[in-house]
Amino acid sequence: MRFKILHSDSETKARAGVFDTDHGSIPTPIFMPVGTTGTVKGVHQADLKNVVRSPIILGNTYHLFLRPGIDVIGNAGGIHRFIHWDGAVLTDSGGYQVFSLSEQRKLTPEGAVFRSHIDGTMHTFTPENVVDIQRTIGADIIMAFDECTPWPCDHDCVRTSMELTHSWLERGRKRYLETEPLYGYPQSWFPIVQGGTYADLRRQSATKIAEADMDGNAIGGLSVGEPEELMYEMIEVVNGILPAEKPRYLMGVGTPANILESISRGVDMFDCVMPTRNGRNGQLFTREGIINIKNEKWKNDFSPIDPEGDSYVDQQYSKAYLRHLIISGELLGAQIASLHNLRFYLWLMEEARGRILNGEFASWMKEMVSKLSIRL
Amino acid sequence: MRFKILHSDSETKARAGVFDTDHGSIPTPIFMPVGTTGTVKGVHQADLKNVVRSPIILGNTYHLFLRPGIDVIGNAGGIHRFIHWDGAVLTDSGGYQVFSLSEQRKLTPEGAVFRSHIDGTMHTFTPENVVDIQRTIGADIIMAFDECTPWPCDHDCVRTSMELTHSWLERGRKRYLETEPLYGYPQSWFPIVQGGTYADLRRQSATKIAEADMDGNAIGGLSVGEPEELMYEMIEVVNGILPAEKPRYLMGVGTPANILESISRGVDMFDCVMPTRNGRNGQLFTREGIINIKNEKWKNDFSPIDPEGDSYVDQQYSKAYLRHLIISGELLGAQIASLHNLRFYLWLMEEARGRILNGEFASWMKEMVSKLSIRL
Repeated sequence: MRFKILHSDSETKARAGVFDTDHGSIPTPIFMPVGTTGTVKGVHQADLKNVVRSPIILGNTYHLFLRPGIDVIGNAGGIHRFIHWDGAVLTDSGGYQVFSLSEQRKLTPEGAVFRSHIDGTMHTFTPENVVDIQRTIGADIIMAFDECTPWPCDHDCVRTSMELTHSWLERGRKRYLETEPLYGYPQSWFPIVQGGTYADLRRQSATKIAEADMDGNAIGGLSVGEPEELMYEMIEVVNGILPAEKPRYLMGVGTPANILESISRGVDMFDCVMPTRNGRNGQLFTREGIINIKNEKWKNDFSPIDPEGDSYVDQQYSKAYLRHLIISGELLGAQIASLHNLRFYLWLMEEARGRILNGEFASWMKEMVSKLSIRL
Repeated sequence: MRFKILHSDSETKARAGVFDTDHGSIPTPIFMPVGTTGTVKGVHQADLKNVVRSPIILGNTYHLFLRPGIDVIGNAGGIHRFIHWDGAVLTDSGGYQVFSLSEQRKLTPEGAVFRSHIDGTMHTFTPENVVDIQRTIGADIIMAFDECTPWPCDHDCVRTSMELTHSWLERGRKRYLETEPLYGYPQSWFPIVQGGTYADLRRQSATKIAEADMDGNAIGGLSVGEPEELMYEMIEVVNGILPAEKPRYLMGVGTPANILESISRGVDMFDCVMPTRNGRNGQLFTREGIINIKNEKWKNDFSPIDPEGDSYVDQQYSKAYLRHLIISGELLGAQIASLHNLRFYLWLMEEARGRILNGEFASWMKEMVSKLSIRL
């Protein structure tokens, strides 16, 4: 087993664990910065390691496949060598992007045919070739090809979509088990639970995914517009079925409060573009609440960006300076806000883990969740 | 005297010196990265200090005046505190930007009335208030308000423009001498030689500027489209008149070869947006020549960006990766290319200085100038 639970919280379903990869051990719960095209936008790899202190980052198969192309990454000897990153990497399967980003797409018995949003070229992703592509990219954790069901969507539509994901699951799993990693270190393959916001379908899907018996399991198709309470309800349903001894990865979620709530429901891994994308637009997450740095009130506020923050940007740069940079559209504004927000997310995970280990998680979380949503 | 010449080259007019400021000693010849709005685009202040190893950066009075506004910088306690930079800073006077960037401008007996390119508001710069503004910004070296004559421009037009700059010089000098710095450290004020590409006017202007007897002198109005040989000729004319014991700053120049040629003609200080702006577009300056990283030939070149380079980005990132980032429009591409190019410029200055000190400058420069312009 690559995953070990060190402690389970007595008051909630939260767990503190560690997932071992050949590119380092990943303490859980963990947040994974999104490195779409092989770069976490605006952040040097050295800063990801030393300032954000991130043990794992995410890459998007769809983006990497289109640019620079799988041949280039293969020639480089895999994603770690290509981007100069010795921490762990997880790649998604491209399913989400094929259905949300590509200019047109068509389902065939084989898989999904789609038109690139970059240059209009046509491509096909299948459950099998998405394994092959991720073998070439060489992430430590790779994902099954799935269809991410939109919201809202009626029961029939969600069921049909889920059944497609399940049929793809078997084909992908077979290809995964028949093939070997290319670069001398193992790759774990995670299947993905779908089922929209219908508890009965989520139960069916979680059962199916649990049966695949892989190193870990993912929950997809949430945080796509549905009310938060519905998302939490689905997480509870799914986590009641997914095996407790394996890591659970909630894809694409979310705000700091969403993440703490999900940890308390037994989720271990997260990714989201929010800290970087919202950071570029001037939204900062802090221990005391959310800052919109463009607001006039910060114009002459020369206090540190985050007096409690433990990254150097928090202490060295002032709110007034960051406001000026963001308003002026300066690259450095995006760089500082991204570093701050990512470090905040990682700090939140470290803190959550510490509280789980020492038994204070439930009360700490309650206090944090109410603070984290305050608008400063 | 704040400037000391340590050695003058016997074969050329090159000099190695040091200019003392309260924010550190600046070895000359020096290149000053351009930090337009209080940030060198794409580069953290910590990286400017530790990776680029830049003792001084430049800010633009025009940009800082419009955004964040002089009140904010004053409230922060000056530019160093505002941007968190303990090295030296030089600000230009805004003259160049008023005449090149603002949406409309009108000369009055007072100065220049112009419309902001950002929000259309009207403002007036005068030789006097440009001193006051730069007192509030608080750079270590501040510049006289001048009119930068365009090229081409006939003799009459250049003479009229130069005479305006000279009348402004006297008014600015008076204001400078009547006022005190605001933050407890001295500010040197440099007047600017104009005169276009007419040797007789350049002689007149250099004589006038030398008579002002300030800490240093600048040469403006070059590298605005005229042939390089004409620029070098004007530098020779001017430097024959400007006092040898004071630093000479050639504004807005240029390519690595331009800078070496100008050093050999007795220039000590330089600034230019080229390393950052061209870097963002994928042009890299190296010891072996110029790289257009977007070129197909680098697609599968996994060798370091600059095998001879001494910044970490040169060694850690490959040409193929940087190419991918720049082509994909990723922020990290701009960040890496800017760090590389700036460090290259600073390295070139350190190297030139070392060669001047040990008497090898002339032969080294000849070899470098021919290499630096090769297209790789």
